[in-house]
Amino acid sequence: MSTALHLHEDRLFPSDATTRDIARRLYREVAALPIVSPHGHTDPSWFATNAPFANATELLLVPDHYVFRMLYSQGVSLDELGIPRADGSRANVDPRAAWRVFARHFHLFRGTPSSMWLNHVFYEVFGLRQRLDESTADTYYNRITEALQTAQFTPRALFERFNIEVIATTESPLESLEHHQSIVDSGWKGRVITAYRPDPVVDPEHEQFPSALQRFGEITGENVYTWDGYLRAHRQRREFFKRMGATSTDHGHPSAATANLPPDEARKLFDTVVRGGATPAQAELFRAQILTEMAAMSLDDGLVMQIHPGCFRNHNAGLFDRYGRDKGADIPLRTEYVHALKPLLDRFGNDPRLNVILFTLDESTYSRELAPLAGHYPTLFLGPAWWFHDAPEGMWRFREQTLASGGFYNTIGFNDDTRAFLSIPARHDVARRIDCAFLGKLVAEHRMDEDEAVDVAIDLAYRLPKKAYRL
Amino acid sequence: MSTALHLHEDRLFPSDATTRDIARRLYREVAALPIVSPHGHTDPSWFATNAPFANATELLLVPDHYVFRMLYSQGVSLDELGIPRADGSRANVDPRAAWRVFARHFHLFRGTPSSMWLNHVFYEVFGLRQRLDESTADTYYNRITEALQTAQFTPRALFERFNIEVIATTESPLESLEHHQSIVDSGWKGRVITAYRPDPVVDPEHEQFPSALQRFGEITGENVYTWDGYLRAHRQRREFFKRMGATSTDHGHPSAATANLPPDEARKLFDTVVRGGATPAQAELFRAQILTEMAAMSLDDGLVMQIHPGCFRNHNAGLFDRYGRDKGADIPLRTEYVHALKPLLDRFGNDPRLNVILFTLDESTYSRELAPLAGHYPTLFLGPAWWFHDAPEGMWRFREQTLASGGFYNTIGFNDDTRAFLSIPARHDVARRIDCAFLGKLVAEHRMDEDEAVDVAIDLAYRLPKKAYRL
Amino acid sequence: MSTALHLHEDRLFPSDATTRDIARRLYREVAALPIVSPHGHTDPSWFATNAPFANATELLLVPDHYVFRMLYSQGVSLDELGIPRADGSRANVDPRAAWRVFARHFHLFRGTPSSMWLNHVFYEVFGLRQRLDESTADTYYNRITEALQTAQFTPRALFERFNIEVIATTESPLESLEHHQSIVDSGWKGRVITAYRPDPVVDPEHEQFPSALQRFGEITGENVYTWDGYLRAHRQRREFFKRMGATSTDHGHPSAATANLPPDEARKLFDTVVRGGATPAQAELFRAQILTEMAAMSLDDGLVMQIHPGCFRNHNAGLFDRYGRDKGADIPLRTEYVHALKPLLDRFGNDPRLNVILFTLDESTYSRELAPLAGHYPTLFLGPAWWFHDAPEGMWRFREQTLASGGFYNTIGFNDDTRAFLSIPARHDVARRIDCAFLGKLVAEHRMDEDEAVDVAIDLAYRLPKKAYRL
Repeated sequence: MSTALHLHEDRLFPSDATTRDIARRLYREVAALPIVSPHGHTDPSWFATNAPFANATELLLVPDHYVFRMLYSQGVSLDELGIPRADGSRANVDPRAAWRVFARHFHLFRGTPSSMWLNHVFYEVFGLRQRLDESTADTYYNRITEALQTAQFTPRALFERFNIEVIATTESPLESLEHHQSIVDSGWKGRVITAYRPDPVVDPEHEQFPSALQRFGEITGENVYTWDGYLRAHRQRREFFKRMGATSTDHGHPSAATANLPPDEARKLFDTVVRGGATPAQAELFRAQILTEMAAMSLDDGLVMQIHPGCFRNHNAGLFDRYGRDKGADIPLRTEYVHALKPLLDRFGNDPRLNVILFTLDESTYSRELAPLAGHYPTLFLGPAWWFHDAPEGMWRFREQTLASGGFYNTIGFNDDTRAFLSIPARHDVARRIDCAFLGKLVAEHRMDEDEAVDVAIDLAYRLPKKAYRL
Repeated sequence: MSTALHLHEDRLFPSDATTRDIARRLYREVAALPIVSPHGHTDPSWFATNAPFANATELLLVPDHYVFRMLYSQGVSLDELGIPRADGSRANVDPRAAWRVFARHFHLFRGTPSSMWLNHVFYEVFGLRQRLDESTADTYYNRITEALQTAQFTPRALFERFNIEVIATTESPLESLEHHQSIVDSGWKGRVITAYRPDPVVDPEHEQFPSALQRFGEITGENVYTWDGYLRAHRQRREFFKRMGATSTDHGHPSAATANLPPDEARKLFDTVVRGGATPAQAELFRAQILTEMAAMSLDDGLVMQIHPGCFRNHNAGLFDRYGRDKGADIPLRTEYVHALKPLLDRFGNDPRLNVILFTLDESTYSRELAPLAGHYPTLFLGPAWWFHDAPEGMWRFREQTLASGGFYNTIGFNDDTRAFLSIPARHDVARRIDCAFLGKLVAEHRMDEDEAVDVAIDLAYRLPKKAYRL
Repeated sequence: MSTALHLHEDRLFPSDATTRDIARRLYREVAALPIVSPHGHTDPSWFATNAPFANATELLLVPDHYVFRMLYSQGVSLDELGIPRADGSRANVDPRAAWRVFARHFHLFRGTPSSMWLNHVFYEVFGLRQRLDESTADTYYNRITEALQTAQFTPRALFERFNIEVIATTESPLESLEHHQSIVDSGWKGRVITAYRPDPVVDPEHEQFPSALQRFGEITGENVYTWDGYLRAHRQRREFFKRMGATSTDHGHPSAATANLPPDEARKLFDTVVRGGATPAQAELFRAQILTEMAAMSLDDGLVMQIHPGCFRNHNAGLFDRYGRDKGADIPLRTEYVHALKPLLDRFGNDPRLNVILFTLDESTYSRELAPLAGHYPTLFLGPAWWFHDAPEGMWRFREQTLASGGFYNTIGFNDDTRAFLSIPARHDVARRIDCAFLGKLVAEHRMDEDEAVDVAIDLAYRLPKKAYRL
């Protein structure tokens, strides 16, 4: 049995007719606005080389740990899907066979954001009109794989078709940014910028910290084994990233801890860290101090600071050993912000030159900590519902729980935060629809006039991300 | 004044006409499915002896701490209701007088799940058509008490009338399971199975631990004062429980902590515990180690493992002294899963032979910890909204907060978890209605087609519990 | 551009027609009930002197940290608004100019409770019919400021117009309560009572603790440097407050910790505290012990006890230094109740003479801790959604998350908790509308009959606060 695939024009709007009509009108005002994607993980080489994507499996399944984690949770092995192993090897799997496994299990995604994004891609990008299941697996594989070899499906063609005004990738300070340079050199008009993500050189517990630090020194010519040289190296790379378009830094720490040590203590802590002798508590303190140092640098270079805390990375030890990082085994942690951010805020919290964008994987902090903090400190803004929470329900909770203390104007619009390039329009569309549905409810309940809601909808979809990220 | 009692056919469905119509259609597909009750606390002697229940008060009020805790919270004493005391004595209360107290306070339950369940029982099981209040108290008492003496209201007759396909009770390893045996011997077709709940012999802080341990040795003939003998005793009793129908174990610990100690350390810890010298931290570590030992045994005997953590039992010291356990003074605790489960998961998390079903009383973990864990690990599944959270609102939150990362297929359908036998159909009916309402919203908002929603509704009501519990 | 200001008669009611009709009918039953305001922060001198309020800015902007914190979060300085500094000085700002700044930023409040309350005041109290923005700033300022000079806008006239049956203010034990006395002496019929809030004399970490303690001794004539004298001083002031109408005490501690130390230990701890040598842990223990002492006193004098825990006060160090307390920089903290309250509950939890009303800024405790506690202990009741959570969404969450375990009857109706006198009718109106909307949903989903919902609505709006606060 295969049945029709729909992409209903009213999807995600409340069923109540009054509210739906308002949501529809609001959505009409924002549906066609350009996409601003200030935080994500697409690969700049796609846009630099503009080489066609290989096939359906390599494009949509293998890199998307949102997708294969669900299959894995129901007993599908990563080898069956051809996911690369940590040692670079890979099970000898026909990509078409892997796609069939995926198709056979597609019902697992019912109701999840993955199913919404994927169906949007199937319908809008590839023109498919039957649902994906075992019976349509081959049709899907063929249609998608063939399309990808055509000129309209190259990365740059899709970028333009998607109406992306600007997209940010995320790179480590050790990256040469050659792809970003070659995009600029090519004369192509697409705006692909980078963001400064220093995790490997600021996290003493990162498995590559020693080698990353060494490379950091080689690239910058600084003696990064002294505190001053290390900080100078950061300033230098931040300047370079800025020249390559960066307007922001990104910090993915286990917690939101910040510190503001006296210079001598910071120096001593750094010495301990570079000697490789840091205890877990010292490693935590070091990362905490780095956030404050980064804020200090932002005052000078104007880079917006993103803090993405609260994830236990690579929780599945066996899977990590065999397949390495980013295999769908990252799990959110309870996260505290009020005490954690105070050292940084005591130093810079009232300085209008600093923009700090806070994210969370702990929704219990929305109304309790984050909205009250952002609703007071001029430096603080709230990033959107993130990662495990970017489903329609999660986005709705974000608005419901941040509105009272934070309002709309201490939030910054949407981040797609994805490496699944084809899903970017789907993700922004979902965010715009949910914001319009939420605003529609406020209008229907007479808490806001419709002209105000239009204004807010456009702010959330377009103006606020540009302003918050200084784009 | 007494007014009509209603049991509206559309109860619990959203008021919006479009969504309600869909919910109704979905519900029609599941309303008559047999009840699968894989976790609960009914008394197997009811079905073994098939003796009639005594009267309204003894059946509906005295054993139901959901009900009398609410009366107690508003100043009704337990003696007034005839609740037995810890010493076995009991205030000299006419059960009819106790029922009148209950009736006079029935408005306290407005909007609560207890009122829904009780009204369902009053209406459907006993055919009552006036609301319970002071003026109808005697009518209720008489009607119910008289009915209970008739053949259609014996435990077995109700079991059949309720269309229960299988029900699990919960027993300690010290139980003889004679009632389960006598049900089998009787030739009656009702399927009443047990579940292995070892709390008294695995919790060093249980007040009966020393005597329970001694009895554990007597029953099994093992030297349970050695670690190896103790583990063999568990294996033996698990086998026996399995022969008496058990397909699962159940673990009600204060936290979700697991441990994976080297055998020598486990042995030493056990020695400390049996000598009665365990500190609270050692007791916690011992319970944590036991969960991992139980998982190891499940690999061999195939019993599904249920973890029910996070309750502060018998919080009211004065009440506990006077009336003993289970008097409505259990209070949920903040509960952590990500670090807590890692030792067990590091050892067995990827082994497809193991099914672990996780429950929580801390709803903040649904989206943050539990759905991400279950949406990754092949061994992990999520039990339904539990205990304090099995109201319509709590069930709705469970779905809204687990769907994005866990989908529907890492959940396992409904548990009624009750000793209130007559309320079992009411409870399953509420769960089915809420799932249909939730799915109806997804269909109305064009996130799923209706045929898919039908499939999911049947999975949640019937197929998933059978599969998850290996029934 | 300026556009019409609306105050729609159906505001805050769900858009679904069936539910809205029910909500409307319920609201009709409660809309005109007198206001009972058992907890708040209005200034008793307003009612004692009945002097006119100065102007729009002094009345509506300067004292309302809900309002100016939002402006501050978007870069408006407190000096621009004329907020007084800690040293008593004040930027030389024309109040009309400050009002214009406020008007220019009024869009920041879209969707927030502040905008609802303010628009209600503008529309109902001052008859304004255009929205506040830059173009209408002067019209607003003039209209409001002029009205305030007229007899209908004096504090007492407004009190009567607002149909306030009773209002409680909050005072420290060091206050003379002269304004309360003079209200009584004046013969005016308005009932303005006090509440006993001993923070400065019970919190060793309060910056005024040493001087407050000294003054406490002077006022009471007790030797407050001995434990017994100190406790006698409390009893004496509580009696005095009670004579001035108080029916409650109020305790704003950082956590909900309670303690029940043996008398000797309490005495020793007190000695350490008064010598100024308390560590943070000892200060916390002292505050914890005080809660239990206050409960003991409540058994004798019958004052209802309010516990308002979980706020990090004055989080912004720079702002605190320059502008002092209560400048919008209070941030909620994660709060634990189950272990924290046990010492007090072990001692008094079953005593019907004691009413303890619990509040929280940590919504994750509603369903997990607070509703289960209040749904069991006869002494415990739940205060309404508080402070950061008194928006429509927060009130709705409160009901949704406390109903199952606590019902409606372990809650106590609404507190406006405000110093923004003019917004009091608006705040009560919002609470009544949300409760009617919530009840309307229960009726529409056939969980309660409409006559029951009417009864509950009246209880929540009027009867329960009077009963819980013994008014």
